[in-house]
Amino acid sequence: MSKLPNISTSIFTVMSKMAAEYNAINLSQGFPNFPVDKRLTDIVAKLAKENVHQYTPMSGYAPLLSKIATLVKNSYGRTVQPETELLVTAGATQAIFTTITALIKNNDDVIILDPSYDCYEAPVLLCNANPVRVALNDDYTANWEIIEKACTSKTKMIIINNPHNPTGKILTESDFEALEILLEKYPNILLLSDEVYEYITFEEKHISAHTREKLLNRCVMVSSFGKSFHVTGWKVGYLVAPEYLMKEIKKVHQFLVFSVNSICQFAISEYLDIVSIAEIGKLYQEKRDYFRQLLKDSRFELMPCEGTYFQVASYAAISNENDVDFCKRLIIGHGVAAIPISTFYADGKDLKLIRFCFAKDNATLEEAAKRLYAI
Amino acid sequence: MSKLPNISTSIFTVMSKMAAEYNAINLSQGFPNFPVDKRLTDIVAKLAKENVHQYTPMSGYAPLLSKIATLVKNSYGRTVQPETELLVTAGATQAIFTTITALIKNNDDVIILDPSYDCYEAPVLLCNANPVRVALNDDYTANWEIIEKACTSKTKMIIINNPHNPTGKILTESDFEALEILLEKYPNILLLSDEVYEYITFEEKHISAHTREKLLNRCVMVSSFGKSFHVTGWKVGYLVAPEYLMKEIKKVHQFLVFSVNSICQFAISEYLDIVSIAEIGKLYQEKRDYFRQLLKDSRFELMPCEGTYFQVASYAAISNENDVDFCKRLIIGHGVAAIPISTFYADGKDLKLIRFCFAKDNATLEEAAKRLYAI
Ligand SMILES: CSCCC(=O)C(=O)O
Ligand SMILES: CSCCC(=O)C(=O)O
Repeated sequence: MSKLPNISTSIFTVMSKMAAEYNAINLSQGFPNFPVDKRLTDIVAKLAKENVHQYTPMSGYAPLLSKIATLVKNSYGRTVQPETELLVTAGATQAIFTTITALIKNNDDVIILDPSYDCYEAPVLLCNANPVRVALNDDYTANWEIIEKACTSKTKMIIINNPHNPTGKILTESDFEALEILLEKYPNILLLSDEVYEYITFEEKHISAHTREKLLNRCVMVSSFGKSFHVTGWKVGYLVAPEYLMKEIKKVHQFLVFSVNSICQFAISEYLDIVSIAEIGKLYQEKRDYFRQLLKDSRFELMPCEGTYFQVASYAAISNENDVDFCKRLIIGHGVAAIPISTFYADGKDLKLIRFCFAKDNATLEEAAKRLYAI
Repeated sequence: MSKLPNISTSIFTVMSKMAAEYNAINLSQGFPNFPVDKRLTDIVAKLAKENVHQYTPMSGYAPLLSKIATLVKNSYGRTVQPETELLVTAGATQAIFTTITALIKNNDDVIILDPSYDCYEAPVLLCNANPVRVALNDDYTANWEIIEKACTSKTKMIIINNPHNPTGKILTESDFEALEILLEKYPNILLLSDEVYEYITFEEKHISAHTREKLLNRCVMVSSFGKSFHVTGWKVGYLVAPEYLMKEIKKVHQFLVFSVNSICQFAISEYLDIVSIAEIGKLYQEKRDYFRQLLKDSRFELMPCEGTYFQVASYAAISNENDVDFCKRLIIGHGVAAIPISTFYADGKDLKLIRFCFAKDNATLEEAAKRLYAI
C-alpha cells in the first residue's frame, strides 16, 4: 500500500515529456531556453580544473554562505548570520521538503493556499499531517479572513509562495500587515515562505517575509539560484531561518542529502561578486511585455503578471474543453505546450486557464505566438 | 520539541571541522585528496559551455540512465530497465532517505546492523518507525541467526551496507545464501543495500544484492558516483529497485529534490564511456597496502580491510582513553584526524578502535604515518 496513494507524476514532467514527444515548443515546465551568462559558465569551466570536487560542509560552502548574507543585506537591509541562519540546499524543493519534514508532526495542520505549486502537499502527507487548502480570492489575492478562519490550535504552519506560481501575484505591504496581525493571535504557527522568484518581480518591489521584524523569528524563507541565474538544472537553492528552527532543519538536512553539489556552489559564490541582481527582474519584465504584446490580438485573454516567469491566460473565448484536454490539443494539434491551471487546485477546479512560461528567447516566443494565433 | 531529540551533528562534520581548526591531516571524513581524473574534469570544462544547465528529467538524464544500465550489465551481468528500475539521486544519502521515506510506515521495524554508518536511523525515526539494532559478530561478520531472531511480523526492512563502513567487511556467497533463506521466511521484508563502495573491493569480488535472483524483487540497491570517481562533492548517486518499489520511491523523489545536478549528470554519462571501473579497486588496494605497510611497526593494531577506503585500527596498546577522547588528542596533540568507532554503535560501545581514511595521496599518508608513530 502506497504512502502517497493520490500522488501521481508531476504535471511538469508529464507536459515536458509530451512536448518532447510531439516536438512542441515547451512553454510548460518553467525553465529558460536561452544561454546562461557566459561569465558564469566560464567560472564553471575554470573551476572544473581546481580543487572543488569534494564534500563542502554540510550547511554549505562557507564563502557562498557569507555571500548569500551579503546578497540578503544588499537586497533587503537585513543582517543574517551565515553560520546559524543560512543553509544551502539541493534546490528549493529540497529546502521545502526538509523544512516540512523537520518541523511538522503527526496530525498537525498545514495551510496551503489554493491554487498552489505542487510540491507542498507530499511532504505534509508524509509527516502524517493534514494539508488544509484555503482558497485565494478570484483575483488571486490572499483572503486573510478566510485564512484566519482556517487557523486552529492544530495549525502548525502556513505556506505562502511569493511571487506566486502560477498566478504571478505578489504580496503587498497590506498583505503582510494582515498576516502579521493574524500570526500575533497564533504564536505557534510557523511561516514557510517559498520565494524562489524573489528577484523576478516587475512594477512592484518584492517584500521578503524573513525581513519583516514581526515574522523573522518564525519564518523559513526559501530561494533558488536555479531560478535567479537561469540554471534550473544545477539544483542549488538556500533557506533562511532563525537559529532555533535551523537547528532542526539541519538535523534532517544532514541525513537527507548531507551536502550540495560542490562545483556549482563554488561557481555561484564567485558569480555573486559580479552579477547584477537588478538585471534579473528587468530581463523578465522585457520578456513578459514582449510575450504579452505578441499575444495582444489573439483570442487568449491575458491575466495580470506581477512576478515569476509565468503568464496565465484564459482560453474561454476559444474553447469549452477542460484545461487538461485543451493543453493536450494545444501540444498535439498546435505544437505549443502549456500547463493546465486546474492541476494547481486541490479539487482540480477548471477555470479555462493555462500557464505559459515566457523564460524563452524571443524567436521561441514569436514562433509560439504564431502558433497560438492559429488555434 | 524536536522530532529528532537524540540526533546531533554528524561525527564526520565534527571531526572535519576540528581537523581544519587544528590544521591536522584529515583522515576522518571519507573523501579523496588527490586530483580527480583529468579526463573527467576536462569533460566538465567542455560541458560548461554547452546546453547542460536546465532540469534533467526527474528520474535522471536519459543517456546517463542507459549507461548505468550498461555498467550494471558489464559489472554483474544483470539487465535492468533504465526507465523503470533506475533513479539518479543527489548522492547516496538522498537515495537512502528517499527509499526509507517512501517504503517505511508508522511503527514498522527496520533492522540496522551495529556498528553502522550514521545515516540510516534518522529517516526511520522520521517515519515514526523503529530502528532495531542487531549486533554484528566480533569479527564484523553478520550473524544471520541473531538477525533472524530480530525479525517479526513488524519487520519491514533490513538495511545492509556492503562493503561495510567503517569495518571494510564484505558479504560472502554464504552470507547471501543465509540472507536468502531468512528472507524466504519473511516475504514482507524489504532489503535496502547500501553499496556505495561496490567498486572498492580488494581480494574478494563484490556481490551486489540486486543481482541475486532471490533478492532482486525486494531489494533497493544504492550506489555513489562520488565514491567511485573520487568526486564526493558532486552528490550524484543512483539506486536500483524493482518497478513496484521504484514507483513509490519516485513519488517521494519528485517532491523531495525533483532532479539532480545536470552538469555532473552529463559529465558522468560521458565519462562512463571511457573510465575503467576495474582501476578503482586497484587504486585503493594499492593505497590500503601502502598505508598498512607504513603503519606496520607502529603501536596501532590494524584490522582486516576487504573493501572501502577505511582502515580500522586498535590503539589499545597505546592508551586506555575512550575513543572519542583519543581522537581529540590525536588531532590536537599529533595533527591527525580519525573517526572514533564508538560513534557507529547505537550504544556508543568503546572498543579502543578508530577509523582512518586512506583515500589520500602518498605524501599525506606518509606524513600521517610519521605522526602516528610519534604517539
Ligand atoms: C521542478 S519542475 C517545475 C518547474 C517550475 O517551477 C514550474 O514549472 O512551475
Ligand atoms: C557524508 S560525510 C561522510 C563520508 C563518509 O562516507 C564517511 O566518512 O564514512
